[in-house]
Amino acid sequence: MAYPAVPPPDPLGTLRVPFLELIERLTRALRALGFEPENAALCARLFAETTRDGVYSHGVRRFPRFAAMVRSGLVQPNAVPARTAQCGALERWDGQIGPGNTNAWRSMDRAIALARDNGVGCVALANTNHWMRGGTYGWQAAEAGVIGICWTNTMPNLPPWGGTTPTLGNNPLVLAVPRQQGAIVLDIAMSQFSYGALESYRDRGELLPVIGGFDAAGELTRDPATIETAQRPLPIGFWKGSGLAFVLDLIGAALSGGQATCEIAPNPLRETSLTQVFIAIGGAGAFGRSPDDIANAAIQFLQSSQPATVGGRIRYPGEQTLRIRAENLARGIPVEPAIWEELG
Amino acid sequence: MAYPAVPPPDPLGTLRVPFLELIERLTRALRALGFEPENAALCARLFAETTRDGVYSHGVRRFPRFAAMVRSGLVQPNAVPARTAQCGALERWDGQIGPGNTNAWRSMDRAIALARDNGVGCVALANTNHWMRGGTYGWQAAEAGVIGICWTNTMPNLPPWGGTTPTLGNNPLVLAVPRQQGAIVLDIAMSQFSYGALESYRDRGELLPVIGGFDAAGELTRDPATIETAQRPLPIGFWKGSGLAFVLDLIGAALSGGQATCEIAPNPLRETSLTQVFIAIGGAGAFGRSPDDIANAAIQFLQSSQPATVGGRIRYPGEQTLRIRAENLARGIPVEPAIWEELG
Repeated sequence: MAYPAVPPPDPLGTLRVPFLELIERLTRALRALGFEPENAALCARLFAETTRDGVYSHGVRRFPRFAAMVRSGLVQPNAVPARTAQCGALERWDGQIGPGNTNAWRSMDRAIALARDNGVGCVALANTNHWMRGGTYGWQAAEAGVIGICWTNTMPNLPPWGGTTPTLGNNPLVLAVPRQQGAIVLDIAMSQFSYGALESYRDRGELLPVIGGFDAAGELTRDPATIETAQRPLPIGFWKGSGLAFVLDLIGAALSGGQATCEIAPNPLRETSLTQVFIAIGGAGAFGRSPDDIANAAIQFLQSSQPATVGGRIRYPGEQTLRIRAENLARGIPVEPAIWEELG
Repeated sequence: MAYPAVPPPDPLGTLRVPFLELIERLTRALRALGFEPENAALCARLFAETTRDGVYSHGVRRFPRFAAMVRSGLVQPNAVPARTAQCGALERWDGQIGPGNTNAWRSMDRAIALARDNGVGCVALANTNHWMRGGTYGWQAAEAGVIGICWTNTMPNLPPWGGTTPTLGNNPLVLAVPRQQGAIVLDIAMSQFSYGALESYRDRGELLPVIGGFDAAGELTRDPATIETAQRPLPIGFWKGSGLAFVLDLIGAALSGGQATCEIAPNPLRETSLTQVFIAIGGAGAFGRSPDDIANAAIQFLQSSQPATVGGRIRYPGEQTLRIRAENLARGIPVEPAIWEELG
């Protein structure tokens, strides 16, 4: 009944950098890559906040790969989404191959504005790039006091249930509910473990806490290395997550006019022109009761379940974020020296 | 890599009843329970269509239990949802403890109308009853040419990840995409197997196709009986489905003002005052590309995955429905004699 391990933030020699200094250094690096000031500032903040919140795989650690995609022209540093159609509270935008995190942030920002005017708003975004941490846009919505629902497609990286080769994306899905003491934010990919998570477990010589895929013989296994070798990670809920990944992709492509997973280059270094959906629900009079009250009662009830292990604790989605955020703000944001050097 | 078994429609002695005759008989039974003509006709059609489409557990077979809840006053036969608030394309309705299927159908109908006017529409429904087959409202949206997303909460019936006693609902989630040759409709509960499914496997003396819960010692198992005894079904994707069930419930309760799972009586025979959310996205100009084209291309790609078993076939969500529907319309809808008698 273990939860997945959070990779330790402090491998030997990791630096602890003040948050604002990290943003400053990232901004400078982005300016050097050709970002105009406003886009550099937003992009830097989103990378820094992701690491601050403990999602190390998609924060500063990922910056060198992002920078390489900017240099190769796959990410256009100064592109911003352009609206291509408006149908009431539903809008279609073209991301123009801009940075994935700034495009996604601007799209959720627009969905929030639509929700304030219409109770609900939906932005379908074509032609964008990897949004890095999906939870970012859930926190964004919740901190604006609205419910956020968003998802992205990806290149084919997940075999469907019943198949052995990837014809689905792992299509992360985010749902967020505002709460004063800290938002409830769920950020889940449709694979049980990402390739990055498999690598972390393998590096630490650990088995996965639960089955995470198939070995080459087609047997379910907790051994990360055999799953990596077979390239057969498992969809969450077997056929259920397989179906959910499929339908999320279709909805995004149909609404945005952008690419479906089947049209995206199956190469992590060339994965571009992705499709995303941002839904916000809120605005004046939107709530029949305070999300705070109901969330607090629901958390209390959730955690009243008899623990499966002595002293065990049941978590709600996003529970760890505020603790990690506070710790990293107090101690400095953990950054590997090599990455820090590369930021220049 | 097996898919879950569809319970056989034809246990010994099962009748095959013409579809219209089944609707007529159900309508008569509902009239006898006090339903006015219009509500009786809609409720009868929804029960009959569910059995026609092969979801036997939530169709006519469930009618006696539904009738008992009408007789005991937990389901008000002639109640219809009443709008309690409107915020643009977001509306709040009170189901007034009406029949769950007619309430849900009317709510999705309203969400579709909102989407036609606003591109997107959202109806949050409080105070309703079990909606029977969730997929019904996905088919409803898709057949109206719009994308449908809806979910319901339930009484506590699922232990959260890390816990052994139920403090979550299994909160079915439905997503639907229109397509001429047949809609794509995903209808998934947040438990890997329902108690009904566990019972079916046990009755047939079969193991589950994949792990479905814990035994009393806390070990994951494919044995349905030990899961039933321990009352520990498994959330899909372990901590992921546990989190998803939690957040879906919160969103519904906050928007509708209705009950969250923690407030619903934990007794299947008294499970009432549920909360549901219906989102429709569509209307003129809503689609950036034809859902048909993209769905057909995506299905072809999905099914191009190398099968895990020789001759194996990868399914898309809803694929089986049209085949079963056609077969049942041709051969008659399967109904157990005892149920047929009870309809009177």
